[in-house]
Amino acid sequence: MSLLVVGTMAFDELITPFGESGKIIGGSATYAALSAANFADDISIVSIIGEDFPQAKLDLMQSRGINLEGVEQVSGGKTFFWKGKYHNDMNTRDSLDTQLNVLADFEPIVPESARDAEYLMLGNLTPAVQMSVLKQMTKRPKLVIMDTMNFWMDVAMPELKEVLKEVDLLTINDEEARQLSGEFSLVKAAKAIFEMGPQYLIIKKGEHGALLFHKEEVFYAPALPLEEVFDPTGAGDTFAGGFIGHLADSDEVSFESMKRGIIYGSAMASFCVEKFGTHRLVEIDRKDLHNRVMRFIELTNFDMKLK
Amino acid sequence: MSLLVVGTMAFDELITPFGESGKIIGGSATYAALSAANFADDISIVSIIGEDFPQAKLDLMQSRGINLEGVEQVSGGKTFFWKGKYHNDMNTRDSLDTQLNVLADFEPIVPESARDAEYLMLGNLTPAVQMSVLKQMTKRPKLVIMDTMNFWMDVAMPELKEVLKEVDLLTINDEEARQLSGEFSLVKAAKAIFEMGPQYLIIKKGEHGALLFHKEEVFYAPALPLEEVFDPTGAGDTFAGGFIGHLADSDEVSFESMKRGIIYGSAMASFCVEKFGTHRLVEIDRKDLHNRVMRFIELTNFDMKLK
Repeated sequence: MSLLVVGTMAFDELITPFGESGKIIGGSATYAALSAANFADDISIVSIIGEDFPQAKLDLMQSRGINLEGVEQVSGGKTFFWKGKYHNDMNTRDSLDTQLNVLADFEPIVPESARDAEYLMLGNLTPAVQMSVLKQMTKRPKLVIMDTMNFWMDVAMPELKEVLKEVDLLTINDEEARQLSGEFSLVKAAKAIFEMGPQYLIIKKGEHGALLFHKEEVFYAPALPLEEVFDPTGAGDTFAGGFIGHLADSDEVSFESMKRGIIYGSAMASFCVEKFGTHRLVEIDRKDLHNRVMRFIELTNFDMKLK
Repeated sequence: MSLLVVGTMAFDELITPFGESGKIIGGSATYAALSAANFADDISIVSIIGEDFPQAKLDLMQSRGINLEGVEQVSGGKTFFWKGKYHNDMNTRDSLDTQLNVLADFEPIVPESARDAEYLMLGNLTPAVQMSVLKQMTKRPKLVIMDTMNFWMDVAMPELKEVLKEVDLLTINDEEARQLSGEFSLVKAAKAIFEMGPQYLIIKKGEHGALLFHKEEVFYAPALPLEEVFDPTGAGDTFAGGFIGHLADSDEVSFESMKRGIIYGSAMASFCVEKFGTHRLVEIDRKDLHNRVMRFIELTNFDMKLK
């Protein structure tokens, strides 16, 4: 089924205890679409880039079956840029430089070909941009998932809440779930967020895994304990891309299907962090993915021998 | 099979956002033994208490099949006392008062009847006390598990490392695993800790669950997401007690059996936090436990439909 991903396309420059990436491509839409392309065929992106975005990387994305008709390239403009340095624990980081560049004036235009997409992922962007995309859809997608962050809760909560009303599934981290709901217990936070619109909630906990809530049901997926995290940038977007890529591929919107989506998303995220940037997302094949999923099964499998 | 639990017996006074407990019984041995008693029959404690420890609570423990021959009651002495206040998040707390009392001069004596115990749990105590107990065993237990904390790493690392050489399984939290090993990656931390003696490592992550490592194998058990945590005191000891109680009951020392032990321990911990102190540990029955274990199975179960 058709999948539309809306989000940033960017240059990142990353400094980790293991080395420096130099200027490489990043952004939520880039990671999510390249991750989803391991599952789904019909993927479109809506985003904005400058003249400086490398054509070879656009070609690579197209070769993975990603339609870039909705990516606006601004003549003479510069692509969104972020530079960050990770601390030794790889869980915390400092932003060293952020240049919005063309992203500052982003007015998304969904191309005709993607306005009837069955699956829609609204990456972490200003709520006004997310709403604009929703309004351009000519038919209600089967599933709308949305990512956001604490920053938008601080500066644009009313607009954020308007978008939430139109969303089926929200993905946020545990601190953001607490901030959005005002509840410390994640079970209570989920109930409060369901009142805001979404019927599904994924709480991302990084190295501690992810929780999926729906009505009274809850599913806990672990993260794979890794010997080494080389670069955590984009792991959350890669997770979301693998998740919705699986749903679009299977075309099944259900709790059971979402559980599988979370395992696929977690597997993709575990690949993502093995090298700088999006490198691993275009390198792995079906067999790698299968083997990684088997490790998740081994990691979580137990038999209580209940009579 | 016989189980010996060594640890503290204490008075706790707890202040939480939900209320104040007043002076209630606590301590690592109390929680662990009352938890284990839901699984195993032949349980002994080695600990020390003052004259002020309530006889009714000793009677209660004996009625649960716990042998208190190894609990030294000091005439005129006062029981170890701890007072703490939990913050609103229930994950962090301040110690308001700590009185070691009779614990300051604790020289454990393992009664004759418990010196050949098949399963031994060394609760969090000074490494010298843990070593003294090990030396009094007339035969090597089938399984020795040990709990410790960052405090002993700070003040008694050489003694701690001597005890570790004699231990099969260590239970610590993630920060302690990092401190002990000097490795941030928990996978690397486990390998470093295996070099110190234990062949098994359980890393307790509180609301994020627990990890079991053995050789190249790893198992990740989630914690049950709870609507309300009323009092987290003793949850870690309750977990360890349920874990070793199951192993002693099944008398099977294997990775598969330990996975079941972790689920039982996690289930017991999820009961523990529902009320103040040890209350829930003596209240639940087989059916409650079965139902709670079913919730863990639902929480973690997924079917990837792999061909």
